[in-house]
Amino acid sequence: MNSCLSLSRRTYFQGGSNEQAAKIEDYERYISRPEVERYMVDCMTSINVPADRALMLAKNLTEADVRGHFSHGLNRLAMYVSDIQNDLCDPHADPKILKEGPATGWIDGCNTLGVVVGEFAMNLAIKKAKETGIGWVTAKGSNHFGICQWYTAMATRENLMGMASTNTSPLVTPTRAQETVFGTNPIAIAANGKKDGFILDMSTSSVAVGKIEMQLRKGQALPSKGWALGTDGKPTTDANEAFYNGKGLMPLGGEEINSGYKGYGLGMLVDILCGIMSGSNNGPNIRHWNNYVGEVANLGHFFVAIDPDYFAPDFKDRLQDLMDHLRQLPPADPAKPVLVPGDPEEIAMKEVAQNGGIFYTTDHIVTYRSLAEKLNVRPMQHRTRPQ
Amino acid sequence: MNSCLSLSRRTYFQGGSNEQAAKIEDYERYISRPEVERYMVDCMTSINVPADRALMLAKNLTEADVRGHFSHGLNRLAMYVSDIQNDLCDPHADPKILKEGPATGWIDGCNTLGVVVGEFAMNLAIKKAKETGIGWVTAKGSNHFGICQWYTAMATRENLMGMASTNTSPLVTPTRAQETVFGTNPIAIAANGKKDGFILDMSTSSVAVGKIEMQLRKGQALPSKGWALGTDGKPTTDANEAFYNGKGLMPLGGEEINSGYKGYGLGMLVDILCGIMSGSNNGPNIRHWNNYVGEVANLGHFFVAIDPDYFAPDFKDRLQDLMDHLRQLPPADPAKPVLVPGDPEEIAMKEVAQNGGIFYTTDHIVTYRSLAEKLNVRPMQHRTRPQ
Repeated sequence: MNSCLSLSRRTYFQGGSNEQAAKIEDYERYISRPEVERYMVDCMTSINVPADRALMLAKNLTEADVRGHFSHGLNRLAMYVSDIQNDLCDPHADPKILKEGPATGWIDGCNTLGVVVGEFAMNLAIKKAKETGIGWVTAKGSNHFGICQWYTAMATRENLMGMASTNTSPLVTPTRAQETVFGTNPIAIAANGKKDGFILDMSTSSVAVGKIEMQLRKGQALPSKGWALGTDGKPTTDANEAFYNGKGLMPLGGEEINSGYKGYGLGMLVDILCGIMSGSNNGPNIRHWNNYVGEVANLGHFFVAIDPDYFAPDFKDRLQDLMDHLRQLPPADPAKPVLVPGDPEEIAMKEVAQNGGIFYTTDHIVTYRSLAEKLNVRPMQHRTRPQ
Repeated sequence: MNSCLSLSRRTYFQGGSNEQAAKIEDYERYISRPEVERYMVDCMTSINVPADRALMLAKNLTEADVRGHFSHGLNRLAMYVSDIQNDLCDPHADPKILKEGPATGWIDGCNTLGVVVGEFAMNLAIKKAKETGIGWVTAKGSNHFGICQWYTAMATRENLMGMASTNTSPLVTPTRAQETVFGTNPIAIAANGKKDGFILDMSTSSVAVGKIEMQLRKGQALPSKGWALGTDGKPTTDANEAFYNGKGLMPLGGEEINSGYKGYGLGMLVDILCGIMSGSNNGPNIRHWNNYVGEVANLGHFFVAIDPDYFAPDFKDRLQDLMDHLRQLPPADPAKPVLVPGDPEEIAMKEVAQNGGIFYTTDHIVTYRSLAEKLNVRPMQHRTRPQ
């Protein structure tokens, strides 16, 4: 039986009272990218993470925030700190290759930081792709590795197509079931066109937990019956029930009649590629994300790099033509232009550049001031007060 | 601009009047698998398809019906006949390898039957996988190749994991757009467990056109706003409008708020892997399925075979454990057990075995009696009248 019925988040550090929260002004919530990275490095080195690895992690997490994926950025720093302090992750260990073929690799992450495992594994996949046209690498013994896109970008910088995926703690309930088995199991695939790129980075759940939390905070119902299951294991639109007492997120597609079984199949596929192939924990055996004690994550990932030049010439031109075609399509709502996967993140990055910083929630600011105090590091310096 | 707003099917042969239809009795609609194959071979050889290829095609199409995917079986035979008779497909041509790497292959299908291209390409992927752990093959210049699972089964018979995918004629409208760009772009992935297998074979659209047609015939509305767009490019639940005058199917997930952009991204991904990589037609350049004249399909496919033994040992045991875990989960509705991808097809196959034949619709029976007459071949022999 599943002992974890709730989607509600584990609290690593007390985020302060509402009274404190009310004191945070808007300009205090903008933090520049280098400053976020500086702060993360300081936090990590304060708990004896080697400086080079602290920087790898800081760059990886900050990239998520800059791209608008706040769930995977600063938001996760507290979990990293907690896992390292509780000896659930060893930031000093080195990943090692357990098996190698001409186009394949199998890696033991040796329970070090996910980003260290991920970069090690994707570098191996890239090396193989340069030698044989394709590299396919799986890793076990890993931890949270940030956004999948971090690794596909390593491949596209080398003009390869990249894929990356990871299994994650159970949150999604298979079609017809009433307990969580799979995580939100994200998958990313990226490829370069002539001018810009296709960057798909998506979870295989219907929505992220954060979206349900957002409806709850706004006091609104869930907009469809395809997001989450209620206490009775049936779809619900009650955000409170879904978040605190529900039977899990629904897979992409939602209800069975709307093909939710396809999202369930995709989530399972991710775990086959990541967990079953690598021999890491998989599905229901992965620690639950809000009630583990003393359990290592032992997550599995997979990484693929492919050289399009091994196939038809002029790949980039055709991809650019297709992307350009899509972007110029007349939208159903003139206020909402047709986008290509990766465009929403481009928009988020432009906003950060225009604003001179990443705009964090009050929760983020309060939580990470508190963490700074606990770790005795300098808090993040925000934008100056407007004149 | 998209000149094809309708999802309604192209009619290859007149299926007879309702009066005729009324005369078809239930027992006349059960046809044994060998008899369906015999009939298909006869049809194909009557239009000068070589006997060995006629048999390949017959086995491929019949497998779809036996597995319950009626849209891809006998239902498509008329299209094959029409394309060959109109010189839009050359059943005599041989596929050829255009480029080869240690783990990759690029193939020109030379506009022959899709199943011939598909088997040729998957055999190459399997050969590569045995040599290097993985084989990744793309093909251009192809035609409709039946169910993707046909090719993944070639890999699993060799104890490899298999993937197969194809692009298809535009039917799905990207999120926010109001014209079709991508096909239902299916993808299949299969792998063997210790006792049985994981077989995911899914389109990246929310639902198949056939499901909308079914609601129409039943005189019922579409059960959600996530299936199809209406005349105004906005989601509709009017089956008639969606089928005859709508702006296309919606991608898996449905509306944007329910993450339909993920299904759109997956459909685009399939076309990048199949069309953009192989240099075949892609997306909006593929002929529309109900109004092409004189246009060859030039479809693209991709095929992957991977040897799990290049990674962690005991892959099959772990996969079986996961599948067994899923199947024993208490269902939300006791009448609907939790299934694993591939189980619905197993159930369909058992039914065919129990019934001593495939159960076709009246439409099928009438249409294919008519085709038998046109091609001067023996009609399909149905089950005998019950005593």
